[in-house]
Amino acid sequence: MALELDQAASPSLTHDIVRWISQEYHDMNGSSIQTLESPPTAAEFAQLVHISRPVVIKGFQIPALKRWTDDYLQTKLQDQLISVAITPNGQADAIAAGPGGRLFFVEPFIEKVSMGKLLEQLNAAERNSDNLSASYLQSQNGNMYSSSFFESPNDNSSEFGALRGDVPSNIPWVTEALGRNPDAVNLWIGNSKSITSIHSDPYENIYTVIRGSKHFTLLPPCEGWCLQERMYPHAVYGHTDNSNCLSVIPSSDTPQVRWSSVINPDLPGSLPSEAHPLHVTLEAGDTLYLPVGWWHYVQQSGPTTIALNWWYDAEVRGMNWIWLSLLRGSGDVPSGNDETDTR
Amino acid sequence: MALELDQAASPSLTHDIVRWISQEYHDMNGSSIQTLESPPTAAEFAQLVHISRPVVIKGFQIPALKRWTDDYLQTKLQDQLISVAITPNGQADAIAAGPGGRLFFVEPFIEKVSMGKLLEQLNAAERNSDNLSASYLQSQNGNMYSSSFFESPNDNSSEFGALRGDVPSNIPWVTEALGRNPDAVNLWIGNSKSITSIHSDPYENIYTVIRGSKHFTLLPPCEGWCLQERMYPHAVYGHTDNSNCLSVIPSSDTPQVRWSSVINPDLPGSLPSEAHPLHVTLEAGDTLYLPVGWWHYVQQSGPTTIALNWWYDAEVRGMNWIWLSLLRGSGDVPSGNDETDTR
Repeated sequence: MALELDQAASPSLTHDIVRWISQEYHDMNGSSIQTLESPPTAAEFAQLVHISRPVVIKGFQIPALKRWTDDYLQTKLQDQLISVAITPNGQADAIAAGPGGRLFFVEPFIEKVSMGKLLEQLNAAERNSDNLSASYLQSQNGNMYSSSFFESPNDNSSEFGALRGDVPSNIPWVTEALGRNPDAVNLWIGNSKSITSIHSDPYENIYTVIRGSKHFTLLPPCEGWCLQERMYPHAVYGHTDNSNCLSVIPSSDTPQVRWSSVINPDLPGSLPSEAHPLHVTLEAGDTLYLPVGWWHYVQQSGPTTIALNWWYDAEVRGMNWIWLSLLRGSGDVPSGNDETDTR
Repeated sequence: MALELDQAASPSLTHDIVRWISQEYHDMNGSSIQTLESPPTAAEFAQLVHISRPVVIKGFQIPALKRWTDDYLQTKLQDQLISVAITPNGQADAIAAGPGGRLFFVEPFIEKVSMGKLLEQLNAAERNSDNLSASYLQSQNGNMYSSSFFESPNDNSSEFGALRGDVPSNIPWVTEALGRNPDAVNLWIGNSKSITSIHSDPYENIYTVIRGSKHFTLLPPCEGWCLQERMYPHAVYGHTDNSNCLSVIPSSDTPQVRWSSVINPDLPGSLPSEAHPLHVTLEAGDTLYLPVGWWHYVQQSGPTTIALNWWYDAEVRGMNWIWLSLLRGSGDVPSGNDETDTR
């Protein structure tokens, strides 16, 4: 789940200004996504960070790309239990209807299984479209390397410690360009059912596909107003009886979550005509630089899709962070539910 | 004279938003100016450009620093005529009262003299405080290297061609970080009478002091609203009779100029209490990175002050340029004169 910018006190820009910024941004930057045929130097990457537009980077070689067959992953991890997100529909951290038809921001049920079991579930799900649940390894907590690793490199709390030899803890040209280590390195394993709902992160993100294809729908930070953020009560998926069915279980003590009410930005009519979504597909071996604050909706294809990402804290000095806060605005974000509805 | 951002269509931010941005920027960035003890790498400099705050850089060595005595300069340039700005008060490109007490944006009278003559004028002026005019070499047109030099390096149109061996045409760590050559490299020679009125430039600026001291008063782009920009009719200094006195001569066909009405931001009461001016003094051998859009007022001390600056075009891709346009606003900039006054 994405961290939030501090929205405490930022005022809201008027609609006129927000629309002018979106149009001006599009006029000056267009809709193309640059592709680099090989990784940039640190100075080149720092320049890309300043421009803050998505870039596809070819040729970023890491050992995982050649090594990670199903057999290899199972052999390396053996019986190690790993945390997998289980949802009825493949959408972890997303808006779904719960009790009384009310909409909730729902976090997944977490199941601990072996890598063998996860791969088996993913392969079976691809063959059989009427499954009642979808598995997606997407723990996003620095499951490969977390900030505690960078503070004390002997940290071995990762469920995927046995795979660390295949995944560099940092990317030299990014670390030099930003002058810092990553905050988290994450492993993602899913299939074509796994969908990431549209959101933005307060991180500079380097995203590498190891197997399968990932399809990104991207909007710049200045088009956040097109995504109709709303406040949703928090819930988690869980089992309420002895059935295998997952239900939306409202949380009692968790604050409401601000989230886009656009469930699928690719569906015609989901976005206003002023939005300029970009589409990019990454194949195995491709890397995406996804700059801080960019909105992304992610789908995947291929029997098993595997990806890695490196999150680096964004620069908070200067104006950029303040502009991002202002674009989000604190405003009065309305409820995602019609609160007068007493169903 | 500074180039202007395109203000054609940008709307104006409300006063509340502009004040919030200024305060938030100050809260997050403070008032300190970082000093580097040696020049940065290209990647480090690219990071500084992204942060876009002024930085003092020590140890940027160029041959001019050791070579440029009065004798050396005269010997190298001999009888070459150089363009010097002459004003009554040392303020070229500044607001001054003209006919009928009306305020004008006044460009200097340009006199062509030898280097020997310029140095003699500057030294004499320092000894004698009641001079009727002040000389300042500040032609700002790429007088060392202009963009035509970078297009065709055999270009030898510079009045200071004989000094090019002492001044690199570009700075490797800047050129690599920005991915481009400079747009202009300028030589500045003045004395304690020479003052540059407060303005901002659409360039990334590297400013190196060769002799004497330069005193900068700096405001971030988000505090431009503190500087009360107004529209002024254009004028030039010239001789209206056979006297040596310079008069303000209104131009007939030149459009009005948008300029700050704050003549001296260091004077108590000139700026609103919400402004957070930074002060920095550069001594010989010091270099200032002055980021695009930063407002600067420049004074100098020392019998003869010599400086060089490298202007690099700012990045127009991404959001930064749009934010700078928005901060300037197109608004309705009022006249700097009370137009109902019929004096």
